[in-house]
Amino acid sequence: MLTPAQRGRLLIVLVSPRNPLNIGAAARAMANFGFAHLAVVSPYAPHWREARSAVGAPELLRNAVECATLADAVADCAFVAGTASLGRRKPVQPTVSLPALAPVFHAELTRGCRIALVFGPEKRGLTRDDLSRCNLIVEIPTAPDQPSMNLGQAVAVCLYELAARAFVANQPVWAPDLLSSAGTQVASPATVSSATLDRLAGVIDEIMGEVRYSPAAMHRANQHDLRTLLRRLAFTESDARRTLGLFRRILWRLKH
Amino acid sequence: MLTPAQRGRLLIVLVSPRNPLNIGAAARAMANFGFAHLAVVSPYAPHWREARSAVGAPELLRNAVECATLADAVADCAFVAGTASLGRRKPVQPTVSLPALAPVFHAELTRGCRIALVFGPEKRGLTRDDLSRCNLIVEIPTAPDQPSMNLGQAVAVCLYELAARAFVANQPVWAPDLLSSAGTQVASPATVSSATLDRLAGVIDEIMGEVRYSPAAMHRANQHDLRTLLRRLAFTESDARRTLGLFRRILWRLKH
Repeated sequence: MLTPAQRGRLLIVLVSPRNPLNIGAAARAMANFGFAHLAVVSPYAPHWREARSAVGAPELLRNAVECATLADAVADCAFVAGTASLGRRKPVQPTVSLPALAPVFHAELTRGCRIALVFGPEKRGLTRDDLSRCNLIVEIPTAPDQPSMNLGQAVAVCLYELAARAFVANQPVWAPDLLSSAGTQVASPATVSSATLDRLAGVIDEIMGEVRYSPAAMHRANQHDLRTLLRRLAFTESDARRTLGLFRRILWRLKH
Repeated sequence: MLTPAQRGRLLIVLVSPRNPLNIGAAARAMANFGFAHLAVVSPYAPHWREARSAVGAPELLRNAVECATLADAVADCAFVAGTASLGRRKPVQPTVSLPALAPVFHAELTRGCRIALVFGPEKRGLTRDDLSRCNLIVEIPTAPDQPSMNLGQAVAVCLYELAARAFVANQPVWAPDLLSSAGTQVASPATVSSATLDRLAGVIDEIMGEVRYSPAAMHRANQHDLRTLLRRLAFTESDARRTLGLFRRILWRLKH
């Protein structure tokens, strides 16, 4: 987990963004994932600070730094990572896939450095020259036939990875028995008692007779199937009591 | 890793999106991460299929399905997950944090089901009513003071997680405690289609009226509780069909 102080030393840099909406979207994603420092290099539109897409992040945009060059923007950073979709290009810098980025950043931040994550312009991405200012190239693993991401979406995905994802252990999660109970999110599902299920089965059985759902010859088999069905359905005690209430009401109406 | 065939059974659903640019952005992210099936429920703008933001995904947008209701969109899905930023709301459904979603989806897809991931409209997200059609609620772990994500960015983050992130081998982990309690919740295996559950709910609802189980003032609340109850109970398709048969028989008897 990055501490707030460590997040405060990660600078997001957008190089020559063309569409102010994308700058605002990047700012919004930064606010969503707890980052505050943005630098914009040589933006195309003069009024980019007013981008309405910066929902919840107008101050972040106001405090953003505007620079003439990438060199200026990352001047005080000890480590710079540039995002790229490499295709057939073979860069000279080391390359990591986004899921492997966080440990590298974490190590740099632990040293007390300022570091930067750099995004290129919408159409063409970072140039070879831009990448030459990066210690590391980061690739977002996308589909080979459609690798180019929207700028705001690429920023969101990277910051989700750094802030929220990288520090969660890969989970062996899938335990169908951990069924969550009604109205509560606690780990112990208040499973229904066998007696409640038997009462429920009794009432349903009576209804089946009342509505002539099945012939007498099938009665025992139907009772069996009903019992196993009710146990398979993973009722909680309160689910089962409500269901029982409904069935009792039905039975009462059928008889009157 | 999800196979192409498995990705082909995941439907992305956007409920009442207001801005066509967001629909296009969602389509672009789908193409970036290898997903193809999009359903749009009751969109605000009529010409959403022409959204220019669907870079690299115009065909995906042309092939998208437009539906009047969420129920229609997920009718043939056996498992439905809805994204939400819960804040203080306490849902009755099980909830997972996005990093824990993939194993659940993987298990459902392995069964051969079609499944859906649902996103609400830009301003207010999915309603309580929408969520009552979901087996599971997914939360993207965002900053508490700025939890609301842009729609296109939220789609990108979720699909990055599902397509690219979840199946990467364990990275070094520093802070396993980041795992929220919500992150350990899992959903029940449900192989019944949403349409079957809707039919079942419809008949039970009619019976409730017939037997005057609840006053009119409680009708909506009871419908909601019934939908969530049916999704919590781990019906198989054949369980659900048998149950439907019994309830139809009951209804018939009540009316004759």
